[in-house]
Amino acid sequence: MFNKVYIVGCGLIGASIGLELVRKQLAREVIGVGRSTANLRIAKRRRAIHRGKRFKTLPEIFQDPELCEAELIVLAMPVVTIEEFLKKIPRWVIAHLRHGAVITDVGSTKKKIVALGTRRIKGPAAFVGAHPIAGTEHSGAAAAVSHLFHDRLTLITPTRRTPRRAQLLIRELWRRLGASVQVLSPERHDALLAETSHLPHMVAFSLIQSLSRDAAGHLIGGGLRDFTRITASDPTMWRDISLHNAHEILRAMRRFEKQWGRLKDALSVRDARQLKRFFAQGNKRRQSLP
Amino acid sequence: MFNKVYIVGCGLIGASIGLELVRKQLAREVIGVGRSTANLRIAKRRRAIHRGKRFKTLPEIFQDPELCEAELIVLAMPVVTIEEFLKKIPRWVIAHLRHGAVITDVGSTKKKIVALGTRRIKGPAAFVGAHPIAGTEHSGAAAAVSHLFHDRLTLITPTRRTPRRAQLLIRELWRRLGASVQVLSPERHDALLAETSHLPHMVAFSLIQSLSRDAAGHLIGGGLRDFTRITASDPTMWRDISLHNAHEILRAMRRFEKQWGRLKDALSVRDARQLKRFFAQGNKRRQSLP
Repeated sequence: MFNKVYIVGCGLIGASIGLELVRKQLAREVIGVGRSTANLRIAKRRRAIHRGKRFKTLPEIFQDPELCEAELIVLAMPVVTIEEFLKKIPRWVIAHLRHGAVITDVGSTKKKIVALGTRRIKGPAAFVGAHPIAGTEHSGAAAAVSHLFHDRLTLITPTRRTPRRAQLLIRELWRRLGASVQVLSPERHDALLAETSHLPHMVAFSLIQSLSRDAAGHLIGGGLRDFTRITASDPTMWRDISLHNAHEILRAMRRFEKQWGRLKDALSVRDARQLKRFFAQGNKRRQSLP
Repeated sequence: MFNKVYIVGCGLIGASIGLELVRKQLAREVIGVGRSTANLRIAKRRRAIHRGKRFKTLPEIFQDPELCEAELIVLAMPVVTIEEFLKKIPRWVIAHLRHGAVITDVGSTKKKIVALGTRRIKGPAAFVGAHPIAGTEHSGAAAAVSHLFHDRLTLITPTRRTPRRAQLLIRELWRRLGASVQVLSPERHDALLAETSHLPHMVAFSLIQSLSRDAAGHLIGGGLRDFTRITASDPTMWRDISLHNAHEILRAMRRFEKQWGRLKDALSVRDARQLKRFFAQGNKRRQSLP
């Protein structure tokens, strides 16, 4: 499928993509780029990449001639670093990218990244935003697994300006990596994720912070364990995601507050009928979920 | 351990207790009482009870001479029905209970129930509140399993007025059923459960209600599935629990709102430092949980 793939960031996602590209022989050469020599060594030993290159800063990457030789460049860094890459990649580098090359990413927010990528990556190459809904609580190349994307959803977020060929290539890539692919606009992606992923995280982080010392020391009762699992995620990642998607997250938070207020009102006046209704509606809603 | 055990309510919990009493031969005779002939038949066929008695109303149970023959009476109904039982059991029945008999319950809230039980059940018998932290999403005798309490926690909530012998009997009972037992006051029980179980339910019900139609139809992203699992619980049960423990739940809700407000403020002004701090604190809190 590819001669040369260039993966920027060999963490859990980047290295898991590499593992599958190598294992399924979808690329003749997978080059992994990162800041940690140790992590690149792990990635190479695990056959997630054929060759690792350590670069401390983005400008060093932009100087790498191999960047312009790749047919596929995967930005598998945290959202803020992806944004920085797309902001800072020099015009002369963009002009020298391989003809038909595609830059894609794996970030959890899409509006800002896709706007930037579509505006900047033009000419010989193109940008296509993607977001594989996969991951574990662990990170780094050591945590990479080849089946990470199998039967998981990957969202592809083209715009009207995304070249059709580039879009189809990224869809095909993710299908070959085992994922089922869904195409939607960056705006709808961010609104949906705000509700189905970011809001639950905001709730979980608030919940765990609200626990009294006594309750935190006696974690009895169902519910809490399930809820707090996701607060084990990386704080920096969540700072970045929440900043990137603040508008949509705040909207989802206000939707939540409306329902929370209904419940609190009913509870404050011990309104049995309203309480039953509220719980029954939630119950019904749950049953109707896909 | 017992000659005759009288279980009022042969749902998931009542029938699971019965199953284990019969299987481990802890009782010579287990009598199960309920409103549904079909459910009692299932309980008997599954050997959760030796004999089933169908009673439509509490007064019918109070007329049953066998109630006064039992050494152990287990109230395995919803919290409101447990409360009603303890309120309505006639004084002459209490006076005729077997000498040394113990009435116990399995309700998820304890303050109201234990206050009522301790005040009313005196003389030959005694009341000991208990709360096994176990259950599944399913209900009824058909869903009962003999190992339901194995390695699970059961909270015993005696007061200063609870006879020591009665308390020790209930502790021994739950240990024999496979549970690990923890003793705490009814007040502390309700405060802890409000935070660790009831609050997560309030949050989950609000969250699922707040989902837009689009988001509910596209349940993508991690988090939400875990969160909403508990909203599959019975709405009537949650109406009753929330009414029974409203004061403590509202207190826990206010604690949650304080943290939620901190997060929302930081997000509203895009305060990267505060956001990172908030998520890092939650993350650290998570790691320190038992």
